[in-house]
Amino acid sequence: MKTGEKVERFIRERRLIGAGDTILLALSGGADSVYLLLLLEKLRGELSFSLHAAHVQHGIRGKEAERDLEFSREIAERFKVPFHGIFVNVPEFSRKHHLGLEEGARLLRYRSLRDCLSEIMDKAPERAGGRGKIAVAQHGNDQAETVLYHLFRGSGLRGLRGMEAEKDGIIRPLLPILKEEILSELSERGIAHREDSTNRDLSYARNRIRERILPEAERLNAGALPHILRTAELIGEAEDLLLERAEEIFGKEGEELLEGGELWGLRISVLSLRPLRPILRRTLLLLMSERLSPGRKDWGAVHFDALDRLLFSGNGAHLDLPEKITADIRGKELRLLRHSEVLSMKGRKKR
Amino acid sequence: MKTGEKVERFIRERRLIGAGDTILLALSGGADSVYLLLLLEKLRGELSFSLHAAHVQHGIRGKEAERDLEFSREIAERFKVPFHGIFVNVPEFSRKHHLGLEEGARLLRYRSLRDCLSEIMDKAPERAGGRGKIAVAQHGNDQAETVLYHLFRGSGLRGLRGMEAEKDGIIRPLLPILKEEILSELSERGIAHREDSTNRDLSYARNRIRERILPEAERLNAGALPHILRTAELIGEAEDLLLERAEEIFGKEGEELLEGGELWGLRISVLSLRPLRPILRRTLLLLMSERLSPGRKDWGAVHFDALDRLLFSGNGAHLDLPEKITADIRGKELRLLRHSEVLSMKGRKKR
Repeated sequence: MKTGEKVERFIRERRLIGAGDTILLALSGGADSVYLLLLLEKLRGELSFSLHAAHVQHGIRGKEAERDLEFSREIAERFKVPFHGIFVNVPEFSRKHHLGLEEGARLLRYRSLRDCLSEIMDKAPERAGGRGKIAVAQHGNDQAETVLYHLFRGSGLRGLRGMEAEKDGIIRPLLPILKEEILSELSERGIAHREDSTNRDLSYARNRIRERILPEAERLNAGALPHILRTAELIGEAEDLLLERAEEIFGKEGEELLEGGELWGLRISVLSLRPLRPILRRTLLLLMSERLSPGRKDWGAVHFDALDRLLFSGNGAHLDLPEKITADIRGKELRLLRHSEVLSMKGRKKR
Repeated sequence: MKTGEKVERFIRERRLIGAGDTILLALSGGADSVYLLLLLEKLRGELSFSLHAAHVQHGIRGKEAERDLEFSREIAERFKVPFHGIFVNVPEFSRKHHLGLEEGARLLRYRSLRDCLSEIMDKAPERAGGRGKIAVAQHGNDQAETVLYHLFRGSGLRGLRGMEAEKDGIIRPLLPILKEEILSELSERGIAHREDSTNRDLSYARNRIRERILPEAERLNAGALPHILRTAELIGEAEDLLLERAEEIFGKEGEELLEGGELWGLRISVLSLRPLRPILRRTLLLLMSERLSPGRKDWGAVHFDALDRLLFSGNGAHLDLPEKITADIRGKELRLLRHSEVLSMKGRKKR
């Protein structure tokens, strides 16, 4: 299958873009985003979405950054895609929020792209029914790096799925294709691009994976990259199945505790959890924690380990968890409760 | 937890050794197998199994191999473990069977260990109730190598589980610990070992993973090795769950076709398979193929792809598969049939 067809099929199968949507492409001027511009430009009529491109200048590099901006503007104009130049000050933002330059750039880039997308959509009320999405040009090589990065850091099955094709309003249509396919398509069509300046943003770890580990893997097996991508997909499917089973079990054995329409706790029979396979039990606990505390940014393996052990404790056992959540065993039931600020203040006064 | 305790718990949890068993340890004289000798020797009274050690001389190296044999004999005798020296001719065997030296050595080594174990058990009829098993000293680093090797080659979820703790009468009690733990235990106790000569048997690919990729991964994250092992475990659990679900579905929707007590085919409703998640459908097809053709050594991804596509074909669709198996769609049913030699000869005569 041709490179463009693979991407088109991926967009259709995952429903990344629908009729009436407004897509803002993050255009760095590098090969990947230039290729994505070409593809989306070709598809916009057929899938009837509105396409814009934005180039974010991070305020880090000088002359070279200006040339990247001008190049991006020219190529967008050449393909008649409305172009937005965005200027941000990453060094200042990073200092102010105590972030590394890379993390600061990432946050500020996405924030400014979202703002730009909102403005575009506000100015086109006739498109009010469609969704707005940011398209980024991460591809199969980036995905393989992500998978290995998570494998070495230990992230559970979730991390091994790699980046999602669509998440939080960001779509990644190039995930099913490889860098070399992008480069050969561009060179075949005689389309110029800038050197991928964003690559230099990437961390030390990512660079080592890209420059040392992946080439070694490809020496061992010429298909190493697609094999890693296929594995990530399989793991994603397996995790989806686990989540589905966990939902099913919670639906049967668990209950939401509501007060005034607000969810303040969950309960589930301990006896229904104990005989489950560890991985399924764990997925169910993960699911429960997510319902109670969406985002769950302070939860780690250590908390799930403790919660899993609690399941095998007797009546009265208690555990404090992140984000003001407590877990208790009460008469053969596990209760996960969210405590409001007031309750926890009361608790403090008593002591 | 101490290294020895981790291994002991692993043996107990996985029930690798039971009372009355006869364990034949493959003792190369390298650090790993010497450490396993010490551990098993310490456990044999408590778990009441009978322990033997065998050293296989491959007939490849000269003087050095003799020294390995003598070292192995001495250390076994020192710990009062009955010792068996086995001599095989790998170069001759490999030539005769058109195998690479490494593959030949592996086959011949396991074959001679099995023969040795049988002889030991024949001579001890009082142990007739116990099982005989071969213990090999592959550890966590070997497991991480295996996982990466399979990740790069593309092996589906099964390969990513790595080596199994017990398979085909071979047990691997050291999988939960790392090489550095083994070396530090041996040095603490002042126990000598030979340089691991088996390492030199290993293929180019394995060597590259061990020497180039794993150290790089550990540079990125000091816990990379345990993280890879934990991931393999999670993937194993997820696959077990998939297999269990697939068994359940086949139990409900499928049927075995028997004649004279012999299984010659399987059938299952196509309509029950089509709506399943691809990974579950695939697992079910894998399960069916294994029932009909245990071992399935000639089956590859391409056959399962074809079989999966067949499910979405109309009545009358047909597919030839490896090992004299055919698949047909007949009135909303998928039938997998095994053809005997006679049937296929008849088929040939007709043409």
